[in-house]
Amino acid sequence: MTDDARREAGFRDRTRVAEARTRLLDRVEPHDRTDPLPVSRADGRALAVPLAAARDVPGYDRAAVDGWAVRAADTFGASDRAPEAVDVLADGTPEGADRVVPGAAARVHTGSPLPDGADAVVMVEHADRAGGVLDVFRALGPGENVGPRGEDVEEGQQLYDAGHRLRPSDLGLLTAAGHTNAEVTARPTVGVVPTGEELVRPGTDPDPGEVTETNALTVAGLVSRWGGVPTHRNPVTDDASALRAAVQRDLHRDVVVTTGGSSVGERDLVPDVVDDMGEVLVHGVALKPGHPVALGVVEETPVLALPGYPVACIVNAVQFLRPVLKRVGGLPCPDLPTVAATLDRKAPSEPGVRTFVRVELREEDGDRRAVPVRAGGSGVLSSVALADGWLVVPEDREGVPAGERVDVELWETVP
Amino acid sequence: MTDDARREAGFRDRTRVAEARTRLLDRVEPHDRTDPLPVSRADGRALAVPLAAARDVPGYDRAAVDGWAVRAADTFGASDRAPEAVDVLADGTPEGADRVVPGAAARVHTGSPLPDGADAVVMVEHADRAGGVLDVFRALGPGENVGPRGEDVEEGQQLYDAGHRLRPSDLGLLTAAGHTNAEVTARPTVGVVPTGEELVRPGTDPDPGEVTETNALTVAGLVSRWGGVPTHRNPVTDDASALRAAVQRDLHRDVVVTTGGSSVGERDLVPDVVDDMGEVLVHGVALKPGHPVALGVVEETPVLALPGYPVACIVNAVQFLRPVLKRVGGLPCPDLPTVAATLDRKAPSEPGVRTFVRVELREEDGDRRAVPVRAGGSGVLSSVALADGWLVVPEDREGVPAGERVDVELWETVP
Repeated sequence: MTDDARREAGFRDRTRVAEARTRLLDRVEPHDRTDPLPVSRADGRALAVPLAAARDVPGYDRAAVDGWAVRAADTFGASDRAPEAVDVLADGTPEGADRVVPGAAARVHTGSPLPDGADAVVMVEHADRAGGVLDVFRALGPGENVGPRGEDVEEGQQLYDAGHRLRPSDLGLLTAAGHTNAEVTARPTVGVVPTGEELVRPGTDPDPGEVTETNALTVAGLVSRWGGVPTHRNPVTDDASALRAAVQRDLHRDVVVTTGGSSVGERDLVPDVVDDMGEVLVHGVALKPGHPVALGVVEETPVLALPGYPVACIVNAVQFLRPVLKRVGGLPCPDLPTVAATLDRKAPSEPGVRTFVRVELREEDGDRRAVPVRAGGSGVLSSVALADGWLVVPEDREGVPAGERVDVELWETVP
Repeated sequence: MTDDARREAGFRDRTRVAEARTRLLDRVEPHDRTDPLPVSRADGRALAVPLAAARDVPGYDRAAVDGWAVRAADTFGASDRAPEAVDVLADGTPEGADRVVPGAAARVHTGSPLPDGADAVVMVEHADRAGGVLDVFRALGPGENVGPRGEDVEEGQQLYDAGHRLRPSDLGLLTAAGHTNAEVTARPTVGVVPTGEELVRPGTDPDPGEVTETNALTVAGLVSRWGGVPTHRNPVTDDASALRAAVQRDLHRDVVVTTGGSSVGERDLVPDVVDDMGEVLVHGVALKPGHPVALGVVEETPVLALPGYPVACIVNAVQFLRPVLKRVGGLPCPDLPTVAATLDRKAPSEPGVRTFVRVELREEDGDRRAVPVRAGGSGVLSSVALADGWLVVPEDREGVPAGERVDVELWETVP
């Protein structure tokens, strides 16, 4: 097909989002690099191996309440009217005694090791002490008010599958269960290459006809949030050999992402460069804004050519870069968080095209409203940066009417 | 009230969560420290000042499509059957010409600056070129297919309020709008002090009666995630003067958090120490698990005494430390993300008490089920670490029946 014919054809055949994602992910393998890390520094990292408890938690039987450690048998029949009397052991020491004999009681505190011989704890409010004698007003069963060794986790018990992404509470549990180090998958590395002869680096004042580079800056920030390590490159001009060299330079990383030059115009050279160096799996996706995206593989490295329009770039990064990054880095890829809201205005969409409608969330009379922001085309970065999230209109719908209850995807959320 | 009487009384009066939070937050002021940061390193930070656009974006009128820049007036009346002919300017140069005179057209690409004199762009597929002459098949209005200067944002346009927490797309918009640096609020600092004579540092093998410290480790991880800077202290023993010294040492920070010793037992010394050094605002909250929490202020520094039971500690950290940290650090405190699910088993709760039911999420036949995990008391760290989130049962309910559609709070989510 000649360049002109191809331009004319445009993207008559656009691949649906799910199909495009599958085609790409089918070609992506997790890398096999791992890092041994102290558990205390492993928050947010994915386990490279499954982990089981290395010891019992707690490591001993302990009192579950403040009170008196006893033999349950000594309290049988006790009641408010008919207390059972037992001897107070080790009077005067706050820790009680380390052994409870029949007919005796030792003072214990919540969490104290249960003295040998005892098998239950009388709550402090269910007993009355007078000198060396304790009146117990409740009958206890064996084990009552005792937290047995291994109650929380038992040595050898499976705790986490490989791939689990660690959270602060997991660090606590792993530490309690005897792990000081954990083998986690290495962060996936991503070369982020902005392309376009009009681009100047942030910090340079653009002349007329020049544009400050922001797409790769934003994508690099997203890569960090998603658990990867971005290398943010300087802008590359629209020249096939320069683009080829730029892709080549980052092929040893886990993923290469370019921004700009991904459509079918005269200066959209990236898809051809990728095709020439490797294979383009998808060019043109049925999503809006942002259909001119190309997804390919060069020497087993996924190469994603994202569009240069800022919103289109971001939408595609979330749809394709996020799952690829998670897959290659052995990280889970959970659904993005959503929040329910009432759509404030009709959101138009085209059947067969997955549409991302940027919305602002507003509280009105106790109702959360999703207000579509000034659409203004895919070039309008403010429409996404000033929004709180987006509404995803699936391919089988033609618009969403005002008043419908919708789920707003918080694609860029912070805890 | 004597110690014994107080113990006996226990927490008969427990403050409701919302009231406890209000009492504490009413005493917390945002700190006024700021950091000047390059925008590229400001992800996740909160703006200390409102920011407006420092320049127009885009900075010039530009072509919104690939095609030919013309004067719209020259195309009036053009149609497929009756094209209007114009002269092709600067034939052979890819950039076209920098000035369009009446009756002429210059080649432009998407994003190119619009040549002087032109006010519209004919799409490439709506024109046919033969040598030096271009046949235009569509009539254009002035401004058609042109992205005007300032289309995205106009110089001086308000972009963000103070307090907005920056996301990657915001970094892009700020950079485009001419900001290379941003004044952000300094991260709030938090002293995290584990207390309890039974505690040993992670990495030390605990003897019987000893417990590995994990609460402060977990809280420190949460503080980092919430945008703060934790200082994770070594365990402090249950001794009033040692506790006092430990609280004093971190009073210059924005928040002090202790874990353990927060109840009303004989060894629960922290609330008394705080009361002695300053003021206890709340002691005992109507939540489960984790009612024995104390919230106070010493020399204007909020001091939170969290319970030593791991789950109780975490629940209280999310309820009280998170909003305090956000308030003091000038950070927004959005609702935690939730996900809808069908409750798999009845979740019991007590009226008047806000209850946190840890659940695992499972997909079954396309339905998302929330399965309560083995409850096992507030000491069972695994019940929260192995859960995906929790269901919050409000004070005005008595349990939630199986089959009810519920929102599960993902209190520890990762993007």
